[in-house]
Amino acid sequence: MREAFHEQLEMVFADLAAISREVENAVHYATEALMSGNASVAESVISADSQIDAAAHRVEEQCFELLSLQQPVATDLRTVVAALRIVSDVERMGDLSVHVAKIARLRVPYLAVPDSALPTMVRMARVAQDMVSRMTTILRERDPEAAGDLDKMDDEMDGLRRDSFTELLGADWDHGVEPAVDIALLGRYYERIADHAVEVARRVVYVVTGEHPALETTG
Amino acid sequence: MREAFHEQLEMVFADLAAISREVENAVHYATEALMSGNASVAESVISADSQIDAAAHRVEEQCFELLSLQQPVATDLRTVVAALRIVSDVERMGDLSVHVAKIARLRVPYLAVPDSALPTMVRMARVAQDMVSRMTTILRERDPEAAGDLDKMDDEMDGLRRDSFTELLGADWDHGVEPAVDIALLGRYYERIADHAVEVARRVVYVVTGEHPALETTG
Repeated sequence: MREAFHEQLEMVFADLAAISREVENAVHYATEALMSGNASVAESVISADSQIDAAAHRVEEQCFELLSLQQPVATDLRTVVAALRIVSDVERMGDLSVHVAKIARLRVPYLAVPDSALPTMVRMARVAQDMVSRMTTILRERDPEAAGDLDKMDDEMDGLRRDSFTELLGADWDHGVEPAVDIALLGRYYERIADHAVEVARRVVYVVTGEHPALETTG
Repeated sequence: MREAFHEQLEMVFADLAAISREVENAVHYATEALMSGNASVAESVISADSQIDAAAHRVEEQCFELLSLQQPVATDLRTVVAALRIVSDVERMGDLSVHVAKIARLRVPYLAVPDSALPTMVRMARVAQDMVSRMTTILRERDPEAAGDLDKMDDEMDGLRRDSFTELLGADWDHGVEPAVDIALLGRYYERIADHAVEVARRVVYVVTGEHPALETTG
């Protein structure tokens, strides 16, 4: 019974890692749509989200089955509940990628982000994508060591967000309101993707080590 | 055993309703800080959030205890898991209220929202607060009927968000970039509060009726 339980739990985490890979693609292509103004790339991200949602739903059902049929306690119980929360996080990260893609689509055939704001935005997108990639590894290997870097990457994201506001609200900004609003929201979406990656890593660390690495973020 | 279980489950939902009431206050006072530019009101919302977090954490622990000691199955299991997700939603709504209060605080002694944009913003805040209030009722009474109105209110929120963008991006906007960015983000926070209220209502309807009222939002 216990062995079957742990095998099924391994499958749940393998499936979570697979969804995380899909989210990585979503972030990647949403950013590509943003940088290229390519409407069909944006559309592909938007339509692929239903697959992430469906995969997330399947993992939820697996978790219910585990809880219901195996009645785990202690660490096993916390691990299944953590998996249920992780699935919400990754599903949400898919939604946030869709939001990025929708801003890209809204501005076609133009680009939402003017040249002067591109370096910060590209960096933000890169950090978000790297964080999702790290999250995939953490889910696959359940290695608490790998989670430490995510906090540093999240700090970098926070710094980039501040830089972005400095650019938008500075005297040199001459692109008007629309790109400023787009960039503020895009920054928010990438920042939330980063926050969720940190949350997922914390949940994994918690179930592996039994310790909360830090208090919840309020991002 | 079953009776003890249902008593404890009632307590969990009573506690969730109590947290929901605190979130209602947070939304109310965050909005007041925004409209008045009163820094101490903003501070009170920011510092009160740790109480919401602590209360949320206690409910989580109650849910773990229920799962662990009572090993519920079928509907009872789904209800406890729903409670665990609802607690994440309400905790998040507290964070979003803090974000509103922080924008208010950032602009003190000025107001973040210029006069011309106030009516839409006031309406948005009002709808968000009404939705949280409705959520409190739904949690307390677990009445699926009360959940229906939330979808209509959420549609109103979406409409207000569109109106707000039309104002910001219109030719008449003469307040520059900073208030536009603030308003775009404030709109996003109120919209997310509304989305979470809808999610909570759906989860309650699901555990009461066994039916998903609709697909997940991607807000």
